[in-house]
Amino acid sequence: MKVALIGVGLIGGSFARAALSAGAVSSVVGFDADPVALSAALRLGAITSAADSSAAAVRQADLVMLAVPVGAMAAVMKAIAPHLRADAVVTDVGSTNGSVVAVARAELGAHFARFVPGHPIAGRERPGVESSEPRLFEGKLFIATPVAETDPAATARVEKLWQRVGARVERMDAQEHDRVFAAVSHLPHLLAFALVAQIAREEDADRKLGKAGAGFRDFTRIAASSPRMWRDVCIANRDALKVELRGYRALLDELQAALDAGDGDALEAVFRAAAECRRMHAPRLDAE
Amino acid sequence: MKVALIGVGLIGGSFARAALSAGAVSSVVGFDADPVALSAALRLGAITSAADSSAAAVRQADLVMLAVPVGAMAAVMKAIAPHLRADAVVTDVGSTNGSVVAVARAELGAHFARFVPGHPIAGRERPGVESSEPRLFEGKLFIATPVAETDPAATARVEKLWQRVGARVERMDAQEHDRVFAAVSHLPHLLAFALVAQIAREEDADRKLGKAGAGFRDFTRIAASSPRMWRDVCIANRDALKVELRGYRALLDELQAALDAGDGDALEAVFRAAAECRRMHAPRLDAE
Repeated sequence: MKVALIGVGLIGGSFARAALSAGAVSSVVGFDADPVALSAALRLGAITSAADSSAAAVRQADLVMLAVPVGAMAAVMKAIAPHLRADAVVTDVGSTNGSVVAVARAELGAHFARFVPGHPIAGRERPGVESSEPRLFEGKLFIATPVAETDPAATARVEKLWQRVGARVERMDAQEHDRVFAAVSHLPHLLAFALVAQIAREEDADRKLGKAGAGFRDFTRIAASSPRMWRDVCIANRDALKVELRGYRALLDELQAALDAGDGDALEAVFRAAAECRRMHAPRLDAE
Repeated sequence: MKVALIGVGLIGGSFARAALSAGAVSSVVGFDADPVALSAALRLGAITSAADSSAAAVRQADLVMLAVPVGAMAAVMKAIAPHLRADAVVTDVGSTNGSVVAVARAELGAHFARFVPGHPIAGRERPGVESSEPRLFEGKLFIATPVAETDPAATARVEKLWQRVGARVERMDAQEHDRVFAAVSHLPHLLAFALVAQIAREEDADRKLGKAGAGFRDFTRIAASSPRMWRDVCIANRDALKVELRGYRALLDELQAALDAGDGDALEAVFRAAAECRRMHAPRLDAE
């Protein structure tokens, strides 16, 4: 199978290295708007050749993997659509699926039936192909969100490839996917960014951060993630994220009122519900 | 040195096991309101004998370590004060120092001059002596916040003991300590509890949590912490925590407005400030 990889970052690079080393694909032609990233991908063996445009990259491809920020998806789809082979399967690795489906429907024309929206639940806070890791997806979840029009053979082909790089494959409805990940991924990223940004704005930021321990380290690990990527994710999934953020702010209003009133019981009730839930889910989460 | 340990949980238990195995103390008489915890501490070798009251535990002690929840501190101090040896040093391991100083001043009488407020920056999300670990404090920070009246010899004695169990020792002003830890510890705990509580309140909580990945796992690790202990910490340090929470809520208001307006630049500016700050501090935090 000949693969075209558009966007040679952490996820795309890790996928391509894994697929090549598993023998699941025969070649990976890469393209990236950043020539430095493209050279690095070639040097690291994430791609077998570099193309000088996305159109050139996809011409021979059996499968096109779009691993660009969600905000760049429309432009990339528009650029490649006229150059796709008639039987080419197109898939992506974005964190939001509803918006990607809408963009693909608008931009891919007849190829939309062979577009398989995908989302591997794996990442690292350091972006870039230099941080890529062929074992990144081993034991991790890959979620496909095909729609009614999606060719089942295209979905099967994409799912099989993710299985070959070690992922567990599940299917979800795209809207439900976006609601779930607004709650368990997009909102936590926004909250972690906000906490570090709040501290960074203050004069004694270095002094405060110099005293932070392991709890802070873990809580804010995702605040080192790519600002560009997470901007795109939050905007693309803003309808679901707005609802989650509004609910969270209402809960913080409750906690502020409890603090102002010195109401320890109210605080403890919320903390206890959280601790019980988090402990119950600890075995599965710790396996991630 | 004969030590009395009041409260045989994770922190007290880890400290006592470390101090005994380093030969820094000759005996540890323990007391805990929970007889099951007290037996476990004896079985694990965290204490060398068990007393049947806090008063009995402290009678022979050179040094009394108070490792009870912050909310229980006043009652414990009142109970032990009449039974302390005249030269006994008293110290604690609470996460808030301003309130402990006020309580000690009120309850310890003449012994207040030998009370050394302390805070080791180490912990685990699982409470209890069963989770204790003699190496818990190795390379970790211990902060002493002596006040003007504190006997320098008492402070030196406590600091030396923490060095013997592997901690790096620093001094801070108690008010500044509480401001700093409201920002880098107490607020993050409250936010993590709130996020998990929000998800737990919804019908599809299990489905959502079943899809959560490593980012969520790390972000919410501290939400498995002791609800009772964190209730006490938040209440004891509520003046500083209220200010931090208010600032954080104002920043979330900004982010909600940016989301509602679809303003990606505003989101990205906050995310970028956070990511730069978090990455700059990553080497030190990763060493925690």
